[in-house]
Amino acid sequence: MQYSAEKLTEEKVFKDPVHRYVHVRDRVIWDLIGTKEFQRLRRIKQLGTTFLTFHGAEHSRFNHSLGVYEIVRRMIDDVFAGRPEWNNDERLLTLCAALLHDLGHGPFSHSFEKVFDFDHEDLTRAIILGNTEVNKILQRVSPDFPTQVAEVIAKTSAKKLVVSMISSQIDADRMDYLQRDAYFTGVSYGQFDMERILRVMRPREEQVVIKKSGMHAVEDYIMSRYQMYWQVYFHPVSRSAEVILTKILHRAKYLYENNYSFKLEPIHFTSLFKEQVTLEDYLKLDESVCFYYFQIWQEEQDPIISDLCRRFVNRNLFKYAEFDPAKEYKKLAELTVLFEKAGIDPDYYLVVDSSSDLPYDFYRPGEEEERLPIHLLMKNGELRELSRESEIVDAISGKRRTDHKLYYPADFLEDDSNQSELKKQMRALLE
Amino acid sequence: MQYSAEKLTEEKVFKDPVHRYVHVRDRVIWDLIGTKEFQRLRRIKQLGTTFLTFHGAEHSRFNHSLGVYEIVRRMIDDVFAGRPEWNNDERLLTLCAALLHDLGHGPFSHSFEKVFDFDHEDLTRAIILGNTEVNKILQRVSPDFPTQVAEVIAKTSAKKLVVSMISSQIDADRMDYLQRDAYFTGVSYGQFDMERILRVMRPREEQVVIKKSGMHAVEDYIMSRYQMYWQVYFHPVSRSAEVILTKILHRAKYLYENNYSFKLEPIHFTSLFKEQVTLEDYLKLDESVCFYYFQIWQEEQDPIISDLCRRFVNRNLFKYAEFDPAKEYKKLAELTVLFEKAGIDPDYYLVVDSSSDLPYDFYRPGEEEERLPIHLLMKNGELRELSRESEIVDAISGKRRTDHKLYYPADFLEDDSNQSELKKQMRALLE
Amino acid sequence: MQYSAEKLTEEKVFKDPVHRYVHVRDRVIWDLIGTKEFQRLRRIKQLGTTFLTFHGAEHSRFNHSLGVYEIVRRMIDDVFAGRPEWNNDERLLTLCAALLHDLGHGPFSHSFEKVFDFDHEDLTRAIILGNTEVNKILQRVSPDFPTQVAEVIAKTSAKKLVVSMISSQIDADRMDYLQRDAYFTGVSYGQFDMERILRVMRPREEQVVIKKSGMHAVEDYIMSRYQMYWQVYFHPVSRSAEVILTKILHRAKYLYENNYSFKLEPIHFTSLFKEQVTLEDYLKLDESVCFYYFQIWQEEQDPIISDLCRRFVNRNLFKYAEFDPAKEYKKLAELTVLFEKAGIDPDYYLVVDSSSDLPYDFYRPGEEEERLPIHLLMKNGELRELSRESEIVDAISGKRRTDHKLYYPADFLEDDSNQSELKKQMRALLE
Amino acid sequence: MQYSAEKLTEEKVFKDPVHRYVHVRDRVIWDLIGTKEFQRLRRIKQLGTTFLTFHGAEHSRFNHSLGVYEIVRRMIDDVFAGRPEWNNDERLLTLCAALLHDLGHGPFSHSFEKVFDFDHEDLTRAIILGNTEVNKILQRVSPDFPTQVAEVIAKTSAKKLVVSMISSQIDADRMDYLQRDAYFTGVSYGQFDMERILRVMRPREEQVVIKKSGMHAVEDYIMSRYQMYWQVYFHPVSRSAEVILTKILHRAKYLYENNYSFKLEPIHFTSLFKEQVTLEDYLKLDESVCFYYFQIWQEEQDPIISDLCRRFVNRNLFKYAEFDPAKEYKKLAELTVLFEKAGIDPDYYLVVDSSSDLPYDFYRPGEEEERLPIHLLMKNGELRELSRESEIVDAISGKRRTDHKLYYPADFLEDDSNQSELKKQMRALLE
Repeated sequence: MQYSAEKLTEEKVFKDPVHRYVHVRDRVIWDLIGTKEFQRLRRIKQLGTTFLTFHGAEHSRFNHSLGVYEIVRRMIDDVFAGRPEWNNDERLLTLCAALLHDLGHGPFSHSFEKVFDFDHEDLTRAIILGNTEVNKILQRVSPDFPTQVAEVIAKTSAKKLVVSMISSQIDADRMDYLQRDAYFTGVSYGQFDMERILRVMRPREEQVVIKKSGMHAVEDYIMSRYQMYWQVYFHPVSRSAEVILTKILHRAKYLYENNYSFKLEPIHFTSLFKEQVTLEDYLKLDESVCFYYFQIWQEEQDPIISDLCRRFVNRNLFKYAEFDPAKEYKKLAELTVLFEKAGIDPDYYLVVDSSSDLPYDFYRPGEEEERLPIHLLMKNGELRELSRESEIVDAISGKRRTDHKLYYPADFLEDDSNQSELKKQMRALLE
Repeated sequence: MQYSAEKLTEEKVFKDPVHRYVHVRDRVIWDLIGTKEFQRLRRIKQLGTTFLTFHGAEHSRFNHSLGVYEIVRRMIDDVFAGRPEWNNDERLLTLCAALLHDLGHGPFSHSFEKVFDFDHEDLTRAIILGNTEVNKILQRVSPDFPTQVAEVIAKTSAKKLVVSMISSQIDADRMDYLQRDAYFTGVSYGQFDMERILRVMRPREEQVVIKKSGMHAVEDYIMSRYQMYWQVYFHPVSRSAEVILTKILHRAKYLYENNYSFKLEPIHFTSLFKEQVTLEDYLKLDESVCFYYFQIWQEEQDPIISDLCRRFVNRNLFKYAEFDPAKEYKKLAELTVLFEKAGIDPDYYLVVDSSSDLPYDFYRPGEEEERLPIHLLMKNGELRELSRESEIVDAISGKRRTDHKLYYPADFLEDDSNQSELKKQMRALLE
Repeated sequence: MQYSAEKLTEEKVFKDPVHRYVHVRDRVIWDLIGTKEFQRLRRIKQLGTTFLTFHGAEHSRFNHSLGVYEIVRRMIDDVFAGRPEWNNDERLLTLCAALLHDLGHGPFSHSFEKVFDFDHEDLTRAIILGNTEVNKILQRVSPDFPTQVAEVIAKTSAKKLVVSMISSQIDADRMDYLQRDAYFTGVSYGQFDMERILRVMRPREEQVVIKKSGMHAVEDYIMSRYQMYWQVYFHPVSRSAEVILTKILHRAKYLYENNYSFKLEPIHFTSLFKEQVTLEDYLKLDESVCFYYFQIWQEEQDPIISDLCRRFVNRNLFKYAEFDPAKEYKKLAELTVLFEKAGIDPDYYLVVDSSSDLPYDFYRPGEEEERLPIHLLMKNGELRELSRESEIVDAISGKRRTDHKLYYPADFLEDDSNQSELKKQMRALLE
Repeated sequence: MQYSAEKLTEEKVFKDPVHRYVHVRDRVIWDLIGTKEFQRLRRIKQLGTTFLTFHGAEHSRFNHSLGVYEIVRRMIDDVFAGRPEWNNDERLLTLCAALLHDLGHGPFSHSFEKVFDFDHEDLTRAIILGNTEVNKILQRVSPDFPTQVAEVIAKTSAKKLVVSMISSQIDADRMDYLQRDAYFTGVSYGQFDMERILRVMRPREEQVVIKKSGMHAVEDYIMSRYQMYWQVYFHPVSRSAEVILTKILHRAKYLYENNYSFKLEPIHFTSLFKEQVTLEDYLKLDESVCFYYFQIWQEEQDPIISDLCRRFVNRNLFKYAEFDPAKEYKKLAELTVLFEKAGIDPDYYLVVDSSSDLPYDFYRPGEEEERLPIHLLMKNGELRELSRESEIVDAISGKRRTDHKLYYPADFLEDDSNQSELKKQMRALLE
């Protein structure tokens, strides 16, 4: 039998707290899950530093990747199969892309990508096309199958329907992470009726559309997304941890570039510091490795890296103040001077962090990031863009919300020594 | 104000998926949570290797410790407070003991303790009484407070009621972990009506007792416990991972003792290998550190340690067969010989693992582990041991159940080279 | 001991699927629950005809009334007690008003009140002040206590804070019914984090306000409310049943006024037909009695009442078409003529039903129904109206949404006899 | 197209709080749900008088019947379809039997059947085979189809596998009611992992069997069943209401037989009083009708019926005392005499009620009620009876538990008039 059509003699079932069960029948999927590149996702948290705010958020990207796969599998097997608009030959491609869409994520992706200037999407592509166990399995399906999978994930594939199942404003990726992150953090916001949404999804040439009768479930999903962003993903305490983490990486790179002598040679980071990341090195990097170094660096002689690592490992975070860049840039300048005067390096200890989100948008051609809008399938067969039908979505459509905060180590400002006057001034400006 | 009586100006609240919220009002508790010894529990999984079977089980002991604290807090503040049998002076002691009861756990405790012959309870004591941040905080309450807390956790305290709240056949520890582990694994077994049980708990001089009207909720709890043991905690796949892990540690120790030259000096393990664990070394050891070494050891020259580490890191586990030691010891001997003949070291690759549990027991004086039975408080004020009132509990009381399995690397037996006849024999005996 | 201060020797607990437990400690509350006027609420469904659409919605107003009581009890005992802004002398008054706020509801209130022109709020007042078991109990608290309770429910009380706990844009009434109706129908929309909202509620002189930190939970509550209205309360199928019910009542009244001779004298309805409802008669009227008559009326000779009753009892409902009164009034006139021509009385069989809701509004003095807005309590102690802080609420604030539908008996239009041409025309206009 | 094979053009979906959605695709099923005999089940509560103890338990048999249908549909469509042991020609028969299995239930079945000596199973048969809308639809499938359905429900069908899906120790009926009753009462006991059980069910010639790997889920189900019986179904307060109801019916029958002149002729009961129930009369009888009479009878002159009806309608129930018939028969005799002396008719006011349940039993040929045991399907293909594999089930297997209580009106014994000495004696014996 062809490898791509092989079924397991007995279906494998994963107990999943969000979807109850994840079902695997295809040999290819089973083999992909067993690869070391996929197993590596167990050592990378789905929500990075969020566990320092919501202690339940310790779940991994492995968890989430199985969930996205399962949602896509249900879409196909329970809803799309048998419909003329759906070509079942795309089934395996879609499942593989769903399973592997986050494969290139490393530890604390957001911070690492910013500091070392790379993109996890490029790495996903590299893993799928490179010399890896994943690539070997995909090759067995057909020589160009790895490329096909990579293109779906990169959204460059011509198979727009398949792309939209995994990446769009209402896709399996978002539907899984909203529910999963809500489940593990314990917040009630991420709940929406996914079963209903799946049942009203319909395949169309260019994208998945939603039957009009399911519009309210979609509204609920968009509101869930909005709440999760502001209640969980952009939580100011998690951002504090992220600020510290980013500064650790900056400092380590700086020290390396300045030939600082680390007690333990940071071999896992060297290629990152040089901004010449190799696939082999990258695959060795996970959160265990990071925590190993952060622990060790607590005892480095450099006072900045040791202080920041102690803060991160033992959760002794920065405090924050609201900050309006348009109005308060002068205050920031003033504070910068005071920090320098007090011997507290403002590059590391006075940090503006901004979070910004657009809950939903209709299509605005030519914008920086063109977004495919959600389309409703009306009773008469026409498609209508969601915000034209939903008053609630219309009300928030295209409204970007941004939040700025200024992070600083409050404990450093409590000093009552000879700097007491100086620190009083700093505190006055910050509190 | 006295430190022990200090309250936070605003109550701190942790969002908890199991108890919805964990509430902290006491300054001492808040300070303890902030210590690095307590934060370290974030880097130790509650269920060790279980996440390799139930992918949701990635939650930490930090998570669980907060939960036990919260249950005890509710017992005291919502149920016991104001009752003449409860002395509210014990409140802080009980809360601290609840929060810290697992403080001495290290990574994968079960395997580590077995291989390196130590007891996490001794380490809990050492952390509480040693030169640590936790000790400093407890000292501030009163000089003998650390000792008091340690004695409650060690069950040597004369305050039997307090001890029973944290360690007995129905205690806050079990009530939290059953529910929490069920939540994160996603199984339905761990559910019981804890709110009901809390409401019917009553303090008595020697222990917490349960009002007769809550007996059915307790039956349900005992059945939950039974199911969780056999469905989750003793799951044969998790035990496979544990077998491999144990063998990694054995091998590493063996290599160290035989002056094997590791590519990277395993400094974090040295004191363990020597069986001279120091508190300082122990506190540096967490699961990040373990995974760091296991990853590196995949590339050691010793074929056994590198193979076992690859298996553990990439989840390529041993298969298992049912094994009845009473009847099949000869088969085991036979297999041992065959493994040796095939050049597969049976010390590492043919492993019997046994799990055993006693779901509930009444008091049997003189037995190895004397268990305090659960007592029901009857309407007339008398106490009666649970199994005398509950037919269901009576039916399973004192019945120990044991399960033996034989673990082996199935992939090693698939070889079809010159050993094909030999391996066929091995497979025949095992399958 | 004073009756108002009497406590039950043992707290009574009701198992409630929404709030887990309802707790009663006050003798007065316990006695009120035992009255026949309160027990009567067991025979009146919370959601009227909705059970014909959502089969789970069979829960009674008894259910809901206990829930509102419990929420108010938690507000007071768990959050307000001890705060200087809260006068605990109002506790019993608030609890009684919460418990009794729906006491005057009769069967299918909406239809009955419309047809027979009365107001359940007047009847609530009448029951509380009249010669009833409820009144006797309230009198025992103090002679003017019944009046005080009635005024709180009628929102005429000067105790504005107390009034706002039971009737405002975020009150115990709404918080209970959204969650309860969601639970029993099984929809996911009614969920929001009530525990969080309770924790951030603060008493102020004029009303309950919400700490700013709880704003997102309030947004979620407002969205839940919006979804419940359009997904459940205004569901077009339930409205179809309500249209039929209203027409049954109209017809019965019409027949009575025209001296029609009923097979069974409708004694329970006589005072309603005369629009001279007495308290005694009203209290005998519940949904059992209605269903009894509707069943009997199925066999009346009058073809309209028997047909409508058969439809209602056996759930053979009207179909509906979208209807835009502004544009389609001509079509309606045309249809009216055709219905008459076909011998189908359009007064009973061609019915426009309109539903309309305003999800949230800020204060607009002078408007028909002045609404007290929700106020947020800012960190600096100021109050700010919710829609000024919340973009989402601002987006939907004050936006009334209205829906019109045209109901008709599709089965009557299927006839293929000599009227086939006529009915074809009618169908063409309707479908 | 043949009627039996007709599918709806669009699947109909019922929102169900227990199974989330109930799916209907078959025209026959859809038509059956629309019959007046099936709609009548909306007016009969699933749990009779239980709503007077657990206020949430207001759900109807309509609710439950849809649930049983849905479980059977999932068994067939998701698990059995395609397996060689399953003959898909039985699909429609099985679905119809599942949907209609409770069709003959009347109001408060337990009491009515006891007092008027009939069996709802006979009435189910009568409705299916009689002149009803249900019968007409089944006839359209094939002339002998009504008989086939009736035989499956009566367990006399030769199609044993089909019978076992609806009536056995682990069937769709029980699986639905345990979960549904738990949901609506709000107790946590009725939960078990039905999805797991469905997945491990396998069709065999004589019955449904359970794969060994699902044994723990079955254990959990049996424990749930046990708890629901003793915590909910046999709750002493619901039994008190049932005792009163039974006595109302007894009294009404007695009065009728003694030519008592009712204010309103109880026409709905006449054929019951004569023990000559006709189908037509029976179908008019529902709980609305009962409550209508009970309300009216509150004002009858006969003091017993009016008192009992007031108690039932206004929930003023009897108290109870534990009663051991083997030891306390003398006390009962003594009390009987005292009741008579006090002028309180012991036939109506001193009632022994016994409840008894057998949680699980293996096959005991020749016993009163032969029970088909649950069989496990072992890996080697053998079947083994459950209690041989499960220690827990073995422990409770065949152990019948019985509970006796003595019910009486406590308020009647509070009198302090000239009977004060007599009543003191009565109270002393009872309390």
